[in-house]
Parts: sequence; structure tokens; C-alpha cells
Amino acid sequence: MRASQFLISTLKEAPADAEVTSHKLMMRAGMIKKLGAGIYTYMPMGLRVIRKVESIVREEMDRAGAVECTMPVIQPAELWQETGRFEKMGPELLRIRDRHERDFVVQPTSEEVVTDIARQELRSYKQLPKNLYQVQTKFRDERRPRFGLMRGREFIMKDAYSFDRDPAAAKKSYETMAGAYRRIFDRFGLRYRAVAADSGAIGGDLSEEFQVIAATGEDAIVYCPQSEYAANMEKAEALAPQGPRPAAKQALQKVPTPGKATCEEVAELLKVPLATTVKSIVLATDKLDEKGAPVSTRLWLLLLRGDHGMNEIKAGKVPGLDAGFRFATTGEIEQHFGTRPGYLGPIGLREPVTVIADREVAVMADWICGANEEDFHIAGVNWGRDLPEPALVADLRNVVEGDPSPDGKGPLAIERGIEVGHIFYLGTKYSKAMNATFLDEDGKPKVFEMGCYGIGITRLPAAAIEQNHDERGIIWPDALAPFTVVVCPIGMDRSADVKAAAEKLHDELVAAGVEVLLDDRGERPGAMFADWELIGVPHRVVISDRGLKEGQLEYQHRRDAAATKVAAGEIAAFVKGRLAAA
Amino acid sequence: MRASQFLISTLKEAPADAEVTSHKLMMRAGMIKKLGAGIYTYMPMGLRVIRKVESIVREEMDRAGAVECTMPVIQPAELWQETGRFEKMGPELLRIRDRHERDFVVQPTSEEVVTDIARQELRSYKQLPKNLYQVQTKFRDERRPRFGLMRGREFIMKDAYSFDRDPAAAKKSYETMAGAYRRIFDRFGLRYRAVAADSGAIGGDLSEEFQVIAATGEDAIVYCPQSEYAANMEKAEALAPQGPRPAAKQALQKVPTPGKATCEEVAELLKVPLATTVKSIVLATDKLDEKGAPVSTRLWLLLLRGDHGMNEIKAGKVPGLDAGFRFATTGEIEQHFGTRPGYLGPIGLREPVTVIADREVAVMADWICGANEEDFHIAGVNWGRDLPEPALVADLRNVVEGDPSPDGKGPLAIERGIEVGHIFYLGTKYSKAMNATFLDEDGKPKVFEMGCYGIGITRLPAAAIEQNHDERGIIWPDALAPFTVVVCPIGMDRSADVKAAAEKLHDELVAAGVEVLLDDRGERPGAMFADWELIGVPHRVVISDRGLKEGQLEYQHRRDAAATKVAAGEIAAFVKGRLAAA
Repeated sequence: MRASQFLISTLKEAPADAEVTSHKLMMRAGMIKKLGAGIYTYMPMGLRVIRKVESIVREEMDRAGAVECTMPVIQPAELWQETGRFEKMGPELLRIRDRHERDFVVQPTSEEVVTDIARQELRSYKQLPKNLYQVQTKFRDERRPRFGLMRGREFIMKDAYSFDRDPAAAKKSYETMAGAYRRIFDRFGLRYRAVAADSGAIGGDLSEEFQVIAATGEDAIVYCPQSEYAANMEKAEALAPQGPRPAAKQALQKVPTPGKATCEEVAELLKVPLATTVKSIVLATDKLDEKGAPVSTRLWLLLLRGDHGMNEIKAGKVPGLDAGFRFATTGEIEQHFGTRPGYLGPIGLREPVTVIADREVAVMADWICGANEEDFHIAGVNWGRDLPEPALVADLRNVVEGDPSPDGKGPLAIERGIEVGHIFYLGTKYSKAMNATFLDEDGKPKVFEMGCYGIGITRLPAAAIEQNHDERGIIWPDALAPFTVVVCPIGMDRSADVKAAAEKLHDELVAAGVEVLLDDRGERPGAMFADWELIGVPHRVVISDRGLKEGQLEYQHRRDAAATKVAAGEIAAFVKGRLAAA
Repeated sequence: MRASQFLISTLKEAPADAEVTSHKLMMRAGMIKKLGAGIYTYMPMGLRVIRKVESIVREEMDRAGAVECTMPVIQPAELWQETGRFEKMGPELLRIRDRHERDFVVQPTSEEVVTDIARQELRSYKQLPKNLYQVQTKFRDERRPRFGLMRGREFIMKDAYSFDRDPAAAKKSYETMAGAYRRIFDRFGLRYRAVAADSGAIGGDLSEEFQVIAATGEDAIVYCPQSEYAANMEKAEALAPQGPRPAAKQALQKVPTPGKATCEEVAELLKVPLATTVKSIVLATDKLDEKGAPVSTRLWLLLLRGDHGMNEIKAGKVPGLDAGFRFATTGEIEQHFGTRPGYLGPIGLREPVTVIADREVAVMADWICGANEEDFHIAGVNWGRDLPEPALVADLRNVVEGDPSPDGKGPLAIERGIEVGHIFYLGTKYSKAMNATFLDEDGKPKVFEMGCYGIGITRLPAAAIEQNHDERGIIWPDALAPFTVVVCPIGMDRSADVKAAAEKLHDELVAAGVEVLLDDRGERPGAMFADWELIGVPHRVVISDRGLKEGQLEYQHRRDAAATKVAAGEIAAFVKGRLAAA
């Protein structure tokens, strides 16, 4: 490919609305072009990267026995009404009326359509297991789309759906996909982690996220460097502390803490470690009548150590909170506690509240909490002596660096990641709602056990850039690069030798199946090199008159600090060697 | 690939709403699945065919120097308002409002978006010519979607757009695309014709349709078997007749024709050739005021020979009609002619009407037309003698078989086709409307000269089937087949020899890069053969115990009447030879 035939369009400055590195670099490198909020044209340079992603994903899905189909972008509302998602999904589901005033949606995923296919086409257990996938345009009408391809509205996703006879077979299908995903992410050439994820309301514990490691990632990933343990923050268990609760040493004491409404402020004022303070978080659950109107409300007081963060997913699993909860209003808090947030605690409540202590808080002695009186806290608090043992003890907090790994193999570490894949054992959620059955060996109809498996095809390049870039631009792994090699001739329009050598190298690499681009635009060396460092082509060869006279050409990998001199006659072989070694 | 891993789903009967052969066969072969009116899932078997089409199209577009990008499916209304298409396009343009009540469209094509890209990215004449293409999902909200993929609402189209400095360069880009299209359609292995098409209001005569020849095609294609001439019916010129008008022989005579309101009925009643009658078609043009309200109306009387059909495209080019016309209402006709349609003619009008004679009518003598009196016609009519020479003479009719070819190389023939590609020199229609300019060599801004080039990716398989099928099912050309070879073992579950031989052949063909499917479903031979004949895989090998014992296996091409015996040891080489010869 010659640059003059291609569309290269780099920018010195990223547009003002580009906040994150990958968005800035993709805009500057001319890979994407904004058409509207969260809606981008994939420009030729960006599309080549997306095609690489698609191609690796397809190869590994096919190898794992999945079968590709394509479900429509615009889907009639009827199937979405069968599962209730047409009504239940929020405004991020883009709804359309056609010319005949019939309702449609633009697909954000395709569970309904694929389950409809299965209930019609997969009639016998003999046809199972079956895994259908597509690589298709999706739309989610995000309220605040941002970060370029990281959180767009229109995007491309690979979504796969497995259908099985029973949970054991479904788990096998799930494991097959987990293996395929590992191969896919290995082939991308990215540092990633497969982390256990919470499987939500559906139950079971088979859910993993594939996270590309990047300091700028939205998600916190918890792992044990000494073992295989890895989970996302929502899922990672904080083990119960070892050993018994220490004996009480201090007397209960009400201390003035004027204007100190946070644990940090109180600890600083009293000159005690933050870990001796306990924070109070008040949740509410509503009992509703048949029409959905609230009949009664119950309040819950969650106690966490002052230096710990609440984990809402874990809180949502506590019996009583597992049907849904909300944060209490200031009015509700004042009614029950007699004071405003910042001075709350479990002692001396006006109205009954159910106390749930985090595992860590349950074994604390001599702790500090709010006095339920503005500008006062209580110190030297002890369970049993000053207040009843907590009604419930549960894991309510996010783990922190150094917490023991749940597998007992050492302390936990935390790093940041970008979720680009998610695999999920669905069970019968959709097949039951849509009465999707097959005839089992015993001649009886059974609902399918399902799994679903997604990869954010257009998000992946953005994640790859967050992980692989420097101040000059993108650094693509070979597997994702829009071009693997760029040949940069200097003064090609002036020197017939340079032109001939550049074209010879280009043609030789093309013949070897290498995706090479010859930059024949006639740019000055500085601008030309800056373009390719921005675009991030991993391998570069510079061909100059002086180099040819000296018989030495310059090869440089995008990560190399300096160029390597290579004998002119050896350059094609040298490049091929570098590609093979990559 | 093994059949058990794939999703094969054939039907004995096509659904009732499938009217045309390709729709019936694609449904029966399990290639597509209806989700809603004009909206289909591309099932695995059908998607493989679509991918073949896409892949050939991409290879030839790239070879022709076009560059691929992907423009969004959901496009903001603003650009569509710039060209006025947001308002002007009818209800087939699917309009959407997002959660913020902003207007969007689902793209039916992408002229606006690509012109917006060009005006931002192509700033200098040095970047031209440039041709950007995409293979992308489109939506047209057809009032009455039908015929499966032939006239669906959601479909995949390849659309390309060229940008050039001037008309000469744009015509060169157009010719490059015309060449690429010929290579594409040659590679599909279909009988097709590139026919000149009308370029509509934009002007110029550079527009060609690529028509797949099929008896069931919607379009009439006109061609000259003795030359390269080919055009669609709208475009094909009916030459002016040779020689002068014959002298008048008959006297003018009013004849009673009670209840005979068509030329056919009159000719039968009077026992004269249909070609001696003249039909009257009344058109109207309205003069509008600034607000679009009609100020005055002018009527036009078109005269065509009784056996000829009116060509509305040609009528729309007559001066006076070229700003748009409509058919006159019965009220308007009665006011001007004093009688109802069926008895109209150019003699004895109540109100003035402009007479336009078809070229053929202009040289007729002694003809028959309506008397402007119910139940009467006039015979022996002659120009000059009985009425003034016509105000205008023009080509108003469709050509018929045997008409002279416009290139003078012989008589015309007519066959039917299905339009699957269209190339078009657009000129500056969009670039002017959107003020899309580049800086030319003289430093001055100029608007781009554009072309657009479409291929109906998902329509092509349907057209291929209309052309290639028999009573048993589809017959794919090798280039489009979902699988090129099917290996059909008989009793694979009972015979280890059959199993081993089938797997060996399968593996050998896979190793040679052949897309082969091994039917391991355990179907009975009759059902198995019927499936593959329906699906239309071109090459089939049957492996049976008896065959193996005799050392003879059966090869059959889908078009062969009977199987060919091939020595068992030679079968792989034989199949490869047949594929190479195809």
C-alpha cells in the first residue's frame, strides 16, 4: 500500500472534547472521526485495526466451535416485550417507530433474537451444544457518551450465546469460551487479566471479565501475585479477620468533635489511627403494595471501618437488602437518629434500625463512632458492653492492597483495568421467559441452559492504546497494527535510487504477506516520522541517499530509543526476522 | 467443518409469504430467518454466502485504489438537513429521536457523511482522486417489503464515493469503478449485463446498472446481440423511423366504437392492425406561487402508437415537462376534451392542449384516434391535412424487441434482469449543497466532482439464486457457495471404513484450502442428498461401504444429471481438479 492511495490525516492537537489518551490519540492519528455525540466514523486507518480485532476474534470463535450469524440491527419490539426488557430497560435502549407506527429497538445485545432462533431451530438434544455468535453494530443511548470509542453510543460488539441441555453442559460451554477468550487476548498481544466477576441477580458464580491492564482503567482489579486469584473489586472477598476480638480497654466517652463530620477529620482531631473509627451508612428498603406504592420503610445501619470503602454489590447480597435497597434520605436519617449525617452511630437511636457490621468492624474493640448528636462522637465503644452484638455481620467493604487473598496464598494487590470482554453463565433467565425448549433424550421438553459472551470490538483498540503509548503517540502490538511496517524514503522525489530501494523493499515485504505501507507523500523527514510515531506503526525502515551510499539503512522499532543500522542488502530479511520474532 | 458443528436447518415447505423463488429457497435452505417485515437474520449458511460476496467486492475495490472506512448506521439529522434530504426524502427514510430529543436517521446511503469527511479531510488537489467505500448495514423503510432479501428493509450495501478535481478526472474515476465492477461480477460467476441507465435530473450520461440476468427479474434490459449496446428500458432510445411520412390515402371518417375504450378493442372492432391506432395520454404541469400553491395548470397530450408503451423517464425530458409532471385528472380531461378517457384525440379540442407526438406517430399516415366524443373514434387521420403538425416530436415510448439498435448495429433484443449494482457520476450535487471544496493548484477553492457506486451485498445472493436453481433447489457458482464441497458418508455411524474415508477426504481438502463440509449428522441418504441439493453446494462426494469395497466413489456436480465413478484413491485429486477447472 502506498500512503498516497490511502487516507492519512493526522492532527497536531486533539479536539477539546477528547479527555482520555486513547480518544486523543485516535483522533490525532486520524483513526476515528466524530459524527455526533458518541458516534464515530471508523476512518481507514482505524478500520484496519478494528478488522484485525474482528479477524482474531472470528478465528478463535470458529476454532472453539461457535457458528457465526448476523442478527438485525433494527429489531421488532415484540420479542423484547416477551422478556419484559422493552419496558424495563431505561432510555439507553433506543426505541424507534416505523412508518406503520410499529415499535422497534436498535439492538444493544441480542438475547431475545437468538433465543427466538434457538426455540425454533434447536428442537432436539442431538443439536446441542450450540453456540451462535455475531460481530455486529450495537447502539446504547448513553446519557453522557465520552472517551471516544471507550464509551460510545454506536459500537461494534462480538456477542455469542451458548445453548445447552443442562447446567453441567452449559458450564462446559462456558469453559470452552473462557479458553477461547484467553487465546484471543493472548493473540492481541496485550497485558490482560481474566477476573472473576459478580454474576448479579442470576446466581451462580460463573462470570469473568477480561480486563486490559492500564493505569487509566475505570475498573479496579484485585489479584494475588502469588497465585491465580483475580477478581474485580465488586466481587473480591474481604476475608473475616483471623483471631478473636480484643478485650475492651477503654471506657465509653462522649467527645466533642465540632464541625468534624468525617472519620478522617475525627481521627485527625483525636490523634488516633483512622482504623479505630467506624463510619455509619444508612440504607432503606421499602415494602410496596400491589400497585407499587410504598407501604412501609425499614432502615439499616451499615458499619464500616473508617478507612474502608463500602461495596454496594456485597451490601446487596445481605438478607433483607437482596431485593433492592436505596440510600436513606436526610429526613429519614434525622427521624431515626435525631441528627444529621456525619455524627451517626449505633448507640442511642430514636427509632429502631437494623445494624449490620462489616466483618472487620465486628471484631474491633475500643472504637469511635458518631454520638447521634451534632458535633459529638463517642470513643471507647465496645460490642456487648456498650451496645448489643450486631444483628448481622457481613462482608460489606472493598478489599484494599495487602488484604489476604481469599485463596490463602498471600496478600492481595490491586491494579487498574479496562473491561473489553465479559463471559457469563446465564442459566435459564431468557429461555424461561421466552419458553425456549428442546426435546431431551427422554422425549420431554426442557428449557435451554444459556451463556453469553461479549467482546467490545471497537473498545479494544482504545484499551490497547491506553496500555501502549508514549508521549509521541500510539505503540501498536504487531497483531493490531494498521500496518506492521512503514517504509520511509527520504527525498524519494529527488533520488531515483531512494525510490527504487523503497519500492523494492515494499514489494518484497508485500510478497511475503507483510502489511507494509510506503510513505510516498513527499513529507519532510521530521513530519513523516512524527506521523508514524503518532499512528504507532511498530516497525519502521528509513531509506535515504546517504544510507544507500554507505550501504546501511535504518531500522527502528516503535519502542526502540534509537535506530539500528542494517546492511542495505539485508534489510528485507532483517525486517522479516523481527516480525517473526515478535 | 462438520455438519454437526454447524447449524443446518432445512424446510420441506416455504412459508406462505415467500412469493419468489429466491425467497422460497433461501428460507427452505435455512439461509435467512424472518424477524419482521423485510428484516432477516442472516443464518450461518446464508452468512457464508454473504461473506463471499463481501470478500470479492472488497478485494476488487481495494485493487481499484478505493479505501475502506465505516460510516455510522445512526446519523445525526444535521448533515441531512444541509442537503435538504432530511425533509425531502419520504417515509422510507427511517427517522429517530434519541433520549435528548435530537433527530437522527438510519442511513439508507451516506452521501452526506462522506461529503462531510471529504470537505474536512481532503483539502488539497494533491490528495485527489480519492475513493472512500464502506460495506455497511442500511435501512429503507419500504412501504411493502417483500421477496426476502430482494426488497428488504434492513440490508447490507457496499457504497463507494469518489472525489475528483474536475469532470474529466471524475469520469476517469467512474471508468475505474466500471472496470472494477466488471471484475467483481465476472468473479461472482454470474451471467450479467452492464447497461446504460438514465442519470436523472443530475445530467450527464454516465450511469450504468449491473443487472444479473434472470427470467424473473423486475427490470427489462435492452441489448443488441450484434454489438456492445445495452441499456435499461428507461434509457434505451427508440430511434426516429427512417424515411418520410407516407402520403395520405384515406379520407377522414368518424366511426362509431361503442364501449371500445382501448386501442386493442378499437383495432379488433375495425379489423385493422393495432399499429394503425394512436393512444392519447394527458399530462398536466402546474405553475406554483412562492408558497407552493397552484396558480395555473397546463395540459399536454402525448400521442403514442397503440402497440407502444409510454416511457415516463423520456416524457420527463421533454421541454416543458422536465420540471415535473403529473397525469391529468378526469375532471381536467373532461373540461379540455369534452369526453372521458378512452375516446380522446388531438382533433376538436374544447380548450388548448399542447400536442407531443412520439417519433413514430409523427411519421404515421391514415391513423385512428379518439373523436373526443364518447363511443366514437376517427379513422384516416393525417397530419397537416386534418390537424396541425404536432407542437413537439420526441422519443416517448419504450423500445420493443426488433427495434433498431441506437448504434445502428442490428435489431434490439430484450431480456429481464435484477439490478444488483449501480454506478453513477454525481457531479457537484452534494458537494455544492454542502459547500465541500478543496484548494486547487491555482490556490482557489473548488467543489468536488463526485461519483457514487453501489452493490447490494445481500441482494446479490438472491439474484444469483433467481438465475441458478432447478426444481430441487439452489445451484451456487463455486465463488458464492457456502461450502464448495460436501462429503456425504452413508452409514458413517455403522462403518469404521466409511468414517475413516470420509474424514480423510475432508481433512485432505481442508489442508488444500477447500471449503468442505462433512455431513456427519447421520441422516438417511435420501434426506441428506435432498438437503444438499436444496442448499446448492456445487460439488458432492458420496462415500459408502459398497463404494469402498468396489474401490469406486461417487462424485456429482450439482448440475450433473448423474454421478461419476472415481477410483477411491483418486478422489481428493479428482475433486481438486474439478475445483481448479471451475
